[in-house]
Amino acid sequence: MDEVDIEIVADPELESPVLVEGLPGVGHVGKLVAEHLLEEKESELVRRVYSEYLPPQVSVEDDGTTELVCIELYALTLDEQDVLVLTGDYQAQDNAGHYRLTNAFLDTAEEFGVEKIFALGGVPTGELIEEYAVLGAATSTEFVDELEDAGVEFREDEPAGGIVGTSGLLLGMGGRRGFDAACLMGETSGYLVDPKSAQSVLEVLQDTLGFEVDFGSLEDRAEEMEEVVGKIEEMEAQQTAVASDDDLRYIG
Amino acid sequence: MDEVDIEIVADPELESPVLVEGLPGVGHVGKLVAEHLLEEKESELVRRVYSEYLPPQVSVEDDGTTELVCIELYALTLDEQDVLVLTGDYQAQDNAGHYRLTNAFLDTAEEFGVEKIFALGGVPTGELIEEYAVLGAATSTEFVDELEDAGVEFREDEPAGGIVGTSGLLLGMGGRRGFDAACLMGETSGYLVDPKSAQSVLEVLQDTLGFEVDFGSLEDRAEEMEEVVGKIEEMEAQQTAVASDDDLRYIG
Amino acid sequence: MDEVDIEIVADPELESPVLVEGLPGVGHVGKLVAEHLLEEKESELVRRVYSEYLPPQVSVEDDGTTELVCIELYALTLDEQDVLVLTGDYQAQDNAGHYRLTNAFLDTAEEFGVEKIFALGGVPTGELIEEYAVLGAATSTEFVDELEDAGVEFREDEPAGGIVGTSGLLLGMGGRRGFDAACLMGETSGYLVDPKSAQSVLEVLQDTLGFEVDFGSLEDRAEEMEEVVGKIEEMEAQQTAVASDDDLRYIG
Amino acid sequence: MDEVDIEIVADPELESPVLVEGLPGVGHVGKLVAEHLLEEKESELVRRVYSEYLPPQVSVEDDGTTELVCIELYALTLDEQDVLVLTGDYQAQDNAGHYRLTNAFLDTAEEFGVEKIFALGGVPTGELIEEYAVLGAATSTEFVDELEDAGVEFREDEPAGGIVGTSGLLLGMGGRRGFDAACLMGETSGYLVDPKSAQSVLEVLQDTLGFEVDFGSLEDRAEEMEEVVGKIEEMEAQQTAVASDDDLRYIG
Repeated sequence: MDEVDIEIVADPELESPVLVEGLPGVGHVGKLVAEHLLEEKESELVRRVYSEYLPPQVSVEDDGTTELVCIELYALTLDEQDVLVLTGDYQAQDNAGHYRLTNAFLDTAEEFGVEKIFALGGVPTGELIEEYAVLGAATSTEFVDELEDAGVEFREDEPAGGIVGTSGLLLGMGGRRGFDAACLMGETSGYLVDPKSAQSVLEVLQDTLGFEVDFGSLEDRAEEMEEVVGKIEEMEAQQTAVASDDDLRYIG
Repeated sequence: MDEVDIEIVADPELESPVLVEGLPGVGHVGKLVAEHLLEEKESELVRRVYSEYLPPQVSVEDDGTTELVCIELYALTLDEQDVLVLTGDYQAQDNAGHYRLTNAFLDTAEEFGVEKIFALGGVPTGELIEEYAVLGAATSTEFVDELEDAGVEFREDEPAGGIVGTSGLLLGMGGRRGFDAACLMGETSGYLVDPKSAQSVLEVLQDTLGFEVDFGSLEDRAEEMEEVVGKIEEMEAQQTAVASDDDLRYIG
Repeated sequence: MDEVDIEIVADPELESPVLVEGLPGVGHVGKLVAEHLLEEKESELVRRVYSEYLPPQVSVEDDGTTELVCIELYALTLDEQDVLVLTGDYQAQDNAGHYRLTNAFLDTAEEFGVEKIFALGGVPTGELIEEYAVLGAATSTEFVDELEDAGVEFREDEPAGGIVGTSGLLLGMGGRRGFDAACLMGETSGYLVDPKSAQSVLEVLQDTLGFEVDFGSLEDRAEEMEEVVGKIEEMEAQQTAVASDDDLRYIG
Repeated sequence: MDEVDIEIVADPELESPVLVEGLPGVGHVGKLVAEHLLEEKESELVRRVYSEYLPPQVSVEDDGTTELVCIELYALTLDEQDVLVLTGDYQAQDNAGHYRLTNAFLDTAEEFGVEKIFALGGVPTGELIEEYAVLGAATSTEFVDELEDAGVEFREDEPAGGIVGTSGLLLGMGGRRGFDAACLMGETSGYLVDPKSAQSVLEVLQDTLGFEVDFGSLEDRAEEMEEVVGKIEEMEAQQTAVASDDDLRYIG
């Protein structure tokens, strides 16, 4: 096995596909969007990316069989737009791994003729929020303008620490290789898996790519999470001792 | 010395051997089974695997001589079944090491004509237990069925975090390379070296491979551990302050 | 992308340039000096050094576009002295990375005909200070003498732990490759970004290289920091409980 | 610069030299012995080993010049026995580094015709001690016997965790490559730099190699440390609250 080992599962012809990346991260926002698209639309698994930069681990499926940890690429069509969805349960576990895996993703994107990349994620606000703004960043001012028209917010000095991990490198390395890449970051408390934040990111994606998808299951998940949040707030209210939001843990 | 350096100690002809892996892990269950087989049956050391992914360390034997840390492969026959037992005092110390060492183990298994692999381990329950169930996972539904017939339990969403380390990769990477591989995980508290859990795993292995081995020494060790457990419970009972099982440490 | 990937942005002819390194470190002293020179003098970006030893990260500019983390080299002229300024937001993230990036910097310095290197940094005193001495170290006794004449202090057993990171290796590896290299370390508390310490380092550099630069903006920044320090001291005074300087955190 | 970069400083002909390794470790015992030999006997620096597995760091000498961190090999003659002394301020910083540096040391030993290796170190007892026994381990039973005759103690299950780092690998890898190697471990509390422990190790080395060295400066250092220990014991006695030896820190 190579350091990064790409298994070709299928090799369909795609027409000017865009790459949509949704790996685990803050609020699992990106992953929720990717999963929702795969649930709602028919898709075809085209690549599995195995790597020693991923955890040495198998998952156990419901039928008792195992799958080696990997990152997967699916092909699907959103109305008329061909899309490659990149998702998985893990990101690379160290710096070099992030660079090398992202490089492999970009190689594959190139093979499929991708020119445009959307890296999806969440941006933590540190507090429970009402209005789910979507922050953006992109590799060119043209792309910034395009996204601004679609309601994406661009704020000075946000996100404060820049963008890290695969999403960051898809823009950083992708931009250097000539891709048009953007990162859409849904605001989220950062404490909870956040389907509402995922929904706002998905809305921007719909506007930009011109497709429609049913939000039902995402809304159901949002309601479940709201119940969780409600219970947490109740518990906090009951605690007469000072309870700060900081005590909340990441709950999924 | 290469990153992974396999020393050929002997090269016997084996007939359709199965590989049984028992490296240190939860409850030392896998290692206890491997050690028990090597104690009870005549065996021949066939390979030593040295690697910079293992600790930079020698053990000191009773006669004052030293041995460089390594993982060993022994050949033995269980009634009519040829077996390669893989064991040692350490697993790889990082992610890449797990992938590369497991790859080397699979290369060696291939050389010996292995088609079937049993990775042994423990699954932590977090509490002292009465009935020692054996959980399973395998690379194919056929293997799952076969093990289910032998009393192995397959439960949805267990083990929760998947299977990590060498055991996980023997299934994950082994499956990709065409091996039939299964993981047998004895339930164990996770706090103690657990010979009882090892015994239940060994019973499944006996059923599946069709051999018999004396359990005497393992039962003796189990009794010793029970005394340890008994003393811990006594001590806990004496503590009037709330004492949770969480306070137990890993004792060997 | 290679482990270290040097992008050639421009390739001007320079006359006996010196290399001035100012990467982040104690009190951000080196970086402050490098930034000040780039603000005050006209400069030309000549190299971008990308590397998987740097964080997997992009920064987001004010216009919403992203830049992959890198270390940059600028060419500028200080009065009559050609200078290459090396700066960036990050140093390498591990030991091997420090060695390999510094090696790449020295390769580039060689290409431009650099013979003399100034590595700039801060040395922590652990307390707020009045007089900002500049400590030195160099690859040859001749260079030590030259700097001593310029007011640099050389004290036995200081800095106590030697010099680490890029600055240390520019001297250590640079010296082995035949460069004349020196490290100028401004004394600083170590708790705060320290423009005053940067100013004393810059004064030494002026004397040694024979140039003049306006200190206005650095002095403004020093005043801002003094206000911060003043407020911290006030807050400490108000705390009747024992408050040690140790409680101060790194504030920028 | 290579991962491991050996600079040939001198290349004297040595007659059946033994390698004596004294790198930093428990109680600095090995390093103290190596330093003492270099202080008392005339020696010639023969190799400097630079490596990215060592810290990215320079030391600053008393004259203000810098030296890149390295491990050094000196040639000297102890009465009639030619010796290579291996010492330095640091060991490798990770597992692979330990393996690769030790491999390079063994390559060099081979070049000089070394057949016998003494790895020196300390073994922590966890308490201040009166009688400084020297524990041993070796690559062959013959070497064990030889050392036992020289007063070295071989105890079952000691040292408990085996021998780690360069000392361990000189035996583990050295033994595999055909060297006769032994580890001499002076008992030491483990809390303090321990010249007394170094002296007992040195006595064994004298007996085994047949040479004599003045102990004066080592005894002076031992007296200084005893004063330190005395003060610590006094301070402990003054504390009416229970003060366990565990509170002692490593003091040099």
